[in-house]
Amino acid sequence: MIKARTLSGFMELLPEEQIQMNLLLEEIKACYERFSFTPLDTPVMEAAEVLLAKGGGDTEKEIYLLEKGSTELALRFDLTVPLAKYVALYYDKLAFPFRRYQVGKVYRGERAQKGRFREFYQADIDIIGDGSLDISNDAEIPAVMYQVFQSLGLTNFAIHINNRKLLSGFYASLGLENKSGEIMRLVDKLDKVGAEKLRAMLQEELALTPAVIDQILDFMTLRGSNQEILTQLRGQAASHPRLQAGVDELEAVCQTLAGYGVPESAYVIDLSIARGLDYYTGTVYETLVTAHPEWGSICSGGRYDNLAGYYCKKQLPGVGMSIGVTRLYDLLRQNHLLNPKARTSPCDILILPMTDHVDPATHLAAELRAQGFKTQIYLEPKKFKHKMNYANKLQVPYLVFLGEDELNSGTISCKDMVSGDQQSFTKDAFIQNMHEQLARRDQEPLIAE
Amino acid sequence: MIKARTLSGFMELLPEEQIQMNLLLEEIKACYERFSFTPLDTPVMEAAEVLLAKGGGDTEKEIYLLEKGSTELALRFDLTVPLAKYVALYYDKLAFPFRRYQVGKVYRGERAQKGRFREFYQADIDIIGDGSLDISNDAEIPAVMYQVFQSLGLTNFAIHINNRKLLSGFYASLGLENKSGEIMRLVDKLDKVGAEKLRAMLQEELALTPAVIDQILDFMTLRGSNQEILTQLRGQAASHPRLQAGVDELEAVCQTLAGYGVPESAYVIDLSIARGLDYYTGTVYETLVTAHPEWGSICSGGRYDNLAGYYCKKQLPGVGMSIGVTRLYDLLRQNHLLNPKARTSPCDILILPMTDHVDPATHLAAELRAQGFKTQIYLEPKKFKHKMNYANKLQVPYLVFLGEDELNSGTISCKDMVSGDQQSFTKDAFIQNMHEQLARRDQEPLIAE
Repeated sequence: MIKARTLSGFMELLPEEQIQMNLLLEEIKACYERFSFTPLDTPVMEAAEVLLAKGGGDTEKEIYLLEKGSTELALRFDLTVPLAKYVALYYDKLAFPFRRYQVGKVYRGERAQKGRFREFYQADIDIIGDGSLDISNDAEIPAVMYQVFQSLGLTNFAIHINNRKLLSGFYASLGLENKSGEIMRLVDKLDKVGAEKLRAMLQEELALTPAVIDQILDFMTLRGSNQEILTQLRGQAASHPRLQAGVDELEAVCQTLAGYGVPESAYVIDLSIARGLDYYTGTVYETLVTAHPEWGSICSGGRYDNLAGYYCKKQLPGVGMSIGVTRLYDLLRQNHLLNPKARTSPCDILILPMTDHVDPATHLAAELRAQGFKTQIYLEPKKFKHKMNYANKLQVPYLVFLGEDELNSGTISCKDMVSGDQQSFTKDAFIQNMHEQLARRDQEPLIAE
Repeated sequence: MIKARTLSGFMELLPEEQIQMNLLLEEIKACYERFSFTPLDTPVMEAAEVLLAKGGGDTEKEIYLLEKGSTELALRFDLTVPLAKYVALYYDKLAFPFRRYQVGKVYRGERAQKGRFREFYQADIDIIGDGSLDISNDAEIPAVMYQVFQSLGLTNFAIHINNRKLLSGFYASLGLENKSGEIMRLVDKLDKVGAEKLRAMLQEELALTPAVIDQILDFMTLRGSNQEILTQLRGQAASHPRLQAGVDELEAVCQTLAGYGVPESAYVIDLSIARGLDYYTGTVYETLVTAHPEWGSICSGGRYDNLAGYYCKKQLPGVGMSIGVTRLYDLLRQNHLLNPKARTSPCDILILPMTDHVDPATHLAAELRAQGFKTQIYLEPKKFKHKMNYANKLQVPYLVFLGEDELNSGTISCKDMVSGDQQSFTKDAFIQNMHEQLARRDQEPLIAE
């Protein structure tokens, strides 16, 4: 006999948890679709050389490689590289701007720790332009995410926004043009390592002087309202044309966000974020749940001007964000932020036939299913108590008893398992009552902070 | 530069195809949920020893193994073995009968050919009992599948039903008790190799006499209505108690199917099917699309009395079926069975702002999205002709023009892209009209035979 086990770093949920996780995934997808993103579903496995076209970095160390056949295969570690491949491969058949969403599992063989999994869901949206892509798209993407969080009932979060053009323009204004990539990589660790350690790293690894480091850290930690920060940035922007371009973009994004109905409270300009991945070239985003910054970003992304450039000569700029759904679910679960009033049972109505003949139950069940109710008949020849235990364990909200009396009178006897009330209905009244009760439950947001 | 490519045997769809595929997957899930199956989502990757607990057979040759770390890892090749692991692992926390569905990708490194993929979706339902599981469940499972096909608009199919107890009882009645597993494995190939070749295989590999082979083939190819076949079987049943038990089960399944509203035309008793996998112990199923038997079964399964036995000492009998969704989609696509009236655009309403200021468009879009319409604003500064080409390429059904006139009069100007009609509406009238038009479209079945 083999011991049943699940690999560490792989989330596997109990049924009631899985229903919550699915509600989370479904709400995200529904929101993406309302913004008219088209679904894609690329393979989990690709030729290793395709996935590693960009090469370098931590990615290569964490990738899962496969042994089969003569082609070296790998499991995808994000959904962005497969998108770049897809757009390059099907360029002629796509309409641009190409707006796609993809929700799928990705794989990283890193050490399992809080908020980090080896197999996890990402839920991405990206917009890819052909030759050019208007800056308003850089506002639409976080506006979609704002709507996603609204729909889920998550209110205490902030989308942090920055612009890498602005950063690299700032470094260029300090005469550090050639080091800007390296500086961004280190400054991106500010959250994790703190100011003192970062100061030491900038001095030792990049040989910056303390005076320059002061200037950098002052800039990174500019604080104030979004408007105040923009005002300060405008004051410095003339010092380098690239800084000016970055400030203009950031300002345009903030203005358009207001047009999308995203309130000031939902986003902050944060000059300290840069995103480690070096394919971002403009706007960058990270999202923190306000009370739980230690979980890291739950939704990140940015603008990349030439990702498909690894595969084709076309200039295909894009902008996108990705929700780390597995991490978000884990955060919500472990911090008790999931609404206990949202659905957790696979079953709306459990029918207990109290007579030998099962046909009346199957006929009623067919009618209830046609109404959209999740309906089950208890079919096992077990004791009544066992059946009630089953209903309780499944957290079934409504039980229907179908005995001789009900069959003769054409009524339905229903027990509300929360209140404990038992009531007799005509079939029509029962169906209407179920619609009302279940609609009320299904309007409960998934998250209750 | 790396050449963009997708591995052979891995289905990757164009956007409009992906929307159809998603409609297929969503309809299957919705149907499973109406029957109160609970969703599960086990990892794609497991410890190799766990997945190979059953061992032997073609499985081991086809499995994808992974190189990472010290544990030998493998990609799942079906969803049944992970279910057995799950039930053994979480036994104490589950309510039995445990009804779960799982829709997910599985991996088999076999040679790619018609209807066969290396990565493909399975959509499984199973019911697992604790100690025992009533035979009525063997009818409920194909009844769910019948409802799935009804919802999809697929009518020309037949669920083939047999019973392995009946088969092994029949072989025992011929004195072939010890060879029944081997005979079933060969007879299962009848469809593929034909009667003559099968005859030769039974003679050469198992040393059966021509007289016995005649008896077997006569039995396998019993024809007639389901009732006629059952009548004939009842006549032979007394020759062995196991044959009797199998006939009783098969009869019970057929009777209960009628109670579930499954018509006689939807299923056939077919004594020639046995399913290659040796964990089935009772009822077995295969489903053929009537006009396309060469595609093989699109939905198969059966009763297994002790699958979790590889991992625990509990007796956990189950019954289930699995739709090969990738194969089914490919069959539908290649045989032009997908309804062109079903949705293929990610966008219901495309708004073209005809003024410089984009805010009226974002506000209208927000209202339309709140109504559930998939709404997009065209934001790129391109020529009018380019925008119309975009709408055509995306197959957008409705275009809204938002110019000075509309903004001043508070009206909405909408072009029906199918009829070509352009009409002006008040906002309320527009919203109501859209609800009616889109509801009509969304009621179109996915399949039009």
